[in-house]
Amino acid sequence: MHIQPLLNYISNFVTLTDEEVDILSSKISCRNYLKGQYVVQQGDICKYEGFVISGCTKTFYVDDAGQEHIIMFSIEDWWVSDMGSFITQTPADFNVQCIENTQLIMFYYDDIEDLYREIPKLERFFRSIVEKGFVAMQKRLVRNFSQTAKERYVYFKNQYPKIEQRIPQYMVASYLGITKEFLSKIKGQLALEE
Amino acid sequence: MHIQPLLNYISNFVTLTDEEVDILSSKISCRNYLKGQYVVQQGDICKYEGFVISGCTKTFYVDDAGQEHIIMFSIEDWWVSDMGSFITQTPADFNVQCIENTQLIMFYYDDIEDLYREIPKLERFFRSIVEKGFVAMQKRLVRNFSQTAKERYVYFKNQYPKIEQRIPQYMVASYLGITKEFLSKIKGQLALEE
Repeated sequence: MHIQPLLNYISNFVTLTDEEVDILSSKISCRNYLKGQYVVQQGDICKYEGFVISGCTKTFYVDDAGQEHIIMFSIEDWWVSDMGSFITQTPADFNVQCIENTQLIMFYYDDIEDLYREIPKLERFFRSIVEKGFVAMQKRLVRNFSQTAKERYVYFKNQYPKIEQRIPQYMVASYLGITKEFLSKIKGQLALEE
Repeated sequence: MHIQPLLNYISNFVTLTDEEVDILSSKISCRNYLKGQYVVQQGDICKYEGFVISGCTKTFYVDDAGQEHIIMFSIEDWWVSDMGSFITQTPADFNVQCIENTQLIMFYYDDIEDLYREIPKLERFFRSIVEKGFVAMQKRLVRNFSQTAKERYVYFKNQYPKIEQRIPQYMVASYLGITKEFLSKIKGQLALEE
């Protein structure tokens, strides 16, 4: 199992002993998904949190009118889950679908309490990453309130250059909450400004 | 110090021993704010996270055009902070201002690492509450994308009936991302439907 990227990532927050790495390895598993496959489907109970080893996913919500709203993209070193569903074990609001073939390391709900008990510093690790996620989500909410679509696009392009190259434009538009025609117009304007 | 509401709240997540309660009490402090005073000001470094014992605050962002955008309200048993500023100790994006006289229990940045070391189960406690906060923020983002202003108002009114009674209508409008005139119109429509 290609666990090294996860260990490198964890080492930014806490230091695990060799024994703790062994315990961790025994409680997680690797899973491969094909492009187009779903990691989580709206309505199902989300049984895991996944760490992206390779690939790219989109997390989205489909409203009552059938409209898709992309909440986030995840690439290497990011996380995928419906956290609301995971922590309460109730049906998921979100879908997570693979935009590329994707390899994840899965933390299962049934094992995570054992992991916390056997490696208490993982509480700290997960606290830290959820804090970062909360802050990112709060800032995204503010941008949606206070920035124009053009400003949001420029922010996205600058902040996540690696993601923009990997995903179709209509998904970028959905993430920004605009139509793909409007995104084309914004990109046309920006090209003229350069 | 009126610490009991905090202890009751913590007991929903973890069980503290008497000794741990003593340690906790020695590392936190109570602070009173008057209506209109600021707990956090945009640009300052946020040095604490506050638990609301009594009162009500609004957390808001002022954009470049001077427009105020309310991100959240906090009443009894909620938290106030600019978490992004708190965890990175960089200038705050948000303001937290008291809408009523407000009493907070403060967790100071300089003491929180000691608290985590001396009471490791607080890692679990804070992980759990930040997870809940993350989920709430994600759901709010989805509502902003996918619901009409009227649907968002009805959700707010049903979800937070105690808050709506305590705050001026123009603040509800700001929270919903609409003008107060539009909110009046929505309320007029709803009154006719009843």
